[in-house]
Amino acid sequence: MDFFLGIDIGGTKIAVVVADRHGHILKSVEFPVLHHRKPQVAIQELVRDIQVLIKTKKISAIGIGTPGPVNPESGKIPWSPNLPGWEGLAICRIMKQNFRVPVFIENDANAAALCEKHFGWGRGKKNLVYITISTGVGGGLILNGELYCGSGFNGGEIGHVTVVPNGNLCRCGKHGCLEAHSSGTAIAKAAKQTSAKLVKEAAARGDKLAVKVLTDAGRVLGIAVGNLLNLLNPELIVLGGGVMKGPEKGIGIFWRAMMQSAKKESWSGPFKKCRIIKTKFRDHVGALGAAALAMEKCRMLNAECR
Amino acid sequence: MDFFLGIDIGGTKIAVVVADRHGHILKSVEFPVLHHRKPQVAIQELVRDIQVLIKTKKISAIGIGTPGPVNPESGKIPWSPNLPGWEGLAICRIMKQNFRVPVFIENDANAAALCEKHFGWGRGKKNLVYITISTGVGGGLILNGELYCGSGFNGGEIGHVTVVPNGNLCRCGKHGCLEAHSSGTAIAKAAKQTSAKLVKEAAARGDKLAVKVLTDAGRVLGIAVGNLLNLLNPELIVLGGGVMKGPEKGIGIFWRAMMQSAKKESWSGPFKKCRIIKTKFRDHVGALGAAALAMEKCRMLNAECR
Repeated sequence: MDFFLGIDIGGTKIAVVVADRHGHILKSVEFPVLHHRKPQVAIQELVRDIQVLIKTKKISAIGIGTPGPVNPESGKIPWSPNLPGWEGLAICRIMKQNFRVPVFIENDANAAALCEKHFGWGRGKKNLVYITISTGVGGGLILNGELYCGSGFNGGEIGHVTVVPNGNLCRCGKHGCLEAHSSGTAIAKAAKQTSAKLVKEAAARGDKLAVKVLTDAGRVLGIAVGNLLNLLNPELIVLGGGVMKGPEKGIGIFWRAMMQSAKKESWSGPFKKCRIIKTKFRDHVGALGAAALAMEKCRMLNAECR
Repeated sequence: MDFFLGIDIGGTKIAVVVADRHGHILKSVEFPVLHHRKPQVAIQELVRDIQVLIKTKKISAIGIGTPGPVNPESGKIPWSPNLPGWEGLAICRIMKQNFRVPVFIENDANAAALCEKHFGWGRGKKNLVYITISTGVGGGLILNGELYCGSGFNGGEIGHVTVVPNGNLCRCGKHGCLEAHSSGTAIAKAAKQTSAKLVKEAAARGDKLAVKVLTDAGRVLGIAVGNLLNLLNPELIVLGGGVMKGPEKGIGIFWRAMMQSAKKESWSGPFKKCRIIKTKFRDHVGALGAAALAMEKCRMLNAECR
């Protein structure tokens, strides 16, 4: 039996899982990223934690997911606003030196798309889109059965497609990005709350402003989804991230508005062809995606892995 | 030397070329599609015209481009508003019976993308988008080096991505499609002219309404282009179709507005990475694309072809 180690390096926490080739998580651990410490120090701690985690279990490969436009060949953490000070850290080399197995790195949303492809709703699917609605909005594309990264590792940046021309100012500096209208941050801001979770709870209780905010945010997401349907005609769109969780009633408002507008903005052929569904993964999806990356790469280079 | 026959079946004309593997056109012919005649009759004439065209030249394969969501496996012409009465015609079988070579069919904008990939600006490029701005707006995607068709053969329908929410009514029934704002038809309508050509000529003479109409249409196209940059991060976007031709001054207004808004709506990384350029093909791009399709498929199945 092969085991894969997945590491998800996020803006607030680092999560690690050991998973088998079916995506079953055998062990997991997570700890906060403390931005006052040097990344090199955090990495040394990470290495020790992993050593404890895997103990005598033999792992075949390590996958790493991280925000930003990752160049997988570089093996380094790219620049990202979420990981100040981490840019250029040769994390693949460090992990390889410590664990003596192949190490692969990919953008975190791309890794999540791989998670869906190998372990989630995407098994056996050729064309799928993963969208994460969280603090920001990210995406990953599996096209013609392969992860699509684009020509500069920016492929799949669904969050920064302009959906509302001259709309809300996005933290990226553009106006009207999907992220500026439908992310957790945007939802909280529009409802004058501190989190999207509170907005969903208020909507579930019938609060009018909260219902309107979630409806508007869902509608804008639906335009983006509808556009993906017409442009990419995928068979599956999976939605994940913090905003998709929470009280069924609250998230239902958001979901229905999204589906209604996706249907309106797309053709019936692509709409009917596509299953649009929430991810079945609750936690660890990032780290499990990194494990999926390790597994996929290992299969490609299987001589190296065994 | 291998020769490939390309047939472009459009709403108004059928164009045929014989091309070599470099995309050089050796011979070409075109004739109108007369919608009062049965497609079967038109096809029989097409066969005779091709027999005259190729004479003793041995062709290796035939490619066919046609509007609509083509299922290449079916070998049939799909439903399309541009070809009433042609749906379901088993054109590949008919051509194969007559010419005894492999015959392939693909959506016409997809074939044009293949033309760019093999014979145009896209040689050696991995990720490229072809956009045709004509009566309508169509698109073709080459992703990870391969034509991307989606899961229901609708992939690449750039013309029906919603760019202006609640914008102009499109002939597809949706509102705010790129086609409803930036196609030749939309440009002519907005300027109260009978053709986009007249609008470009008027703009070249300094006509204010014409300048405004072309600027607006270019801006909307630029939003779509900017979105493609962020979502697909291609290294090349090629623009073709009737609207891209015409007086340098007139089309310059449209082009500059498009570029300005594409830059505004995308991130600097993907924008800088991508070359955005007019096609170098003037006429016959559709038929040449069909020949490129024949060549590509032949290479894939080269045992069958030689």
